[in-house]
Amino acid sequence: MKKIIIALAALVPVLAMADHHKEAPAAKKEAAATFRHVVCFKFKEEATPAQIKNIEKEFAALKGKIDTITGLEWGTNVSPEDRAKGFTHCFIVSFKDLAGLKVYAPHEAHQAFVKILKPILDDVFVFDFVAK
Amino acid sequence: MKKIIIALAALVPVLAMADHHKEAPAAKKEAAATFRHVVCFKFKEEATPAQIKNIEKEFAALKGKIDTITGLEWGTNVSPEDRAKGFTHCFIVSFKDLAGLKVYAPHEAHQAFVKILKPILDDVFVFDFVAK
Repeated sequence: MKKIIIALAALVPVLAMADHHKEAPAAKKEAAATFRHVVCFKFKEEATPAQIKNIEKEFAALKGKIDTITGLEWGTNVSPEDRAKGFTHCFIVSFKDLAGLKVYAPHEAHQAFVKILKPILDDVFVFDFVAK
Repeated sequence: MKKIIIALAALVPVLAMADHHKEAPAAKKEAAATFRHVVCFKFKEEATPAQIKNIEKEFAALKGKIDTITGLEWGTNVSPEDRAKGFTHCFIVSFKDLAGLKVYAPHEAHQAFVKILKPILDDVFVFDFVAK
């Protein structure tokens, strides 16, 4: 009977580790994804709210269409400072590395997005960095 | 003896949960930290490499000096496109919310940093958003 108790007690850290390992792949993927592609948009005055909403939706949807995207978040400018130079939208797309971006840029899903973006785009700011 | 085994067996999920909860505060903090303060710098031509290195070091050090910063990452531009408008450095500072930024902006550590930055700063781009 003692053996069973010992065996059960020994299971505790093993099960705790199993729980931990279950979460490891996602965490590892996130930790390795340090390439940030920062993209800001300024739309033309004639761009309609519906067109802009569509751009937001279609950009966010790229995450499900291009495998090398490890993260994608975005929002509109809420800075109390006036230093956004007229840009109203910012998207941060994450990749594992530059190779991930190089799959994304010419990808047909991205190219289809660019096609609907261009007619209403006034200016774009793009900054890529490897996060330290 | 059976009772002891049952009690031990009951402990297994409790301990597994305890292990999970141990990690929860950091994960929760990260999940709640959705306010992104994106700051890009373009330095004056006369800025020396040593001065720029110091700015990198001092900005990164703010993370340890201002409590409301939940994340800080940065890097220099490596974009294959030429759309960074001359900006060479990008820092993304994360906060839980706008209130976090409002503690950061006037904080003496941030103000001391701005003091060493200003003389060598040519242009700055600031974009804040709540990450969707």
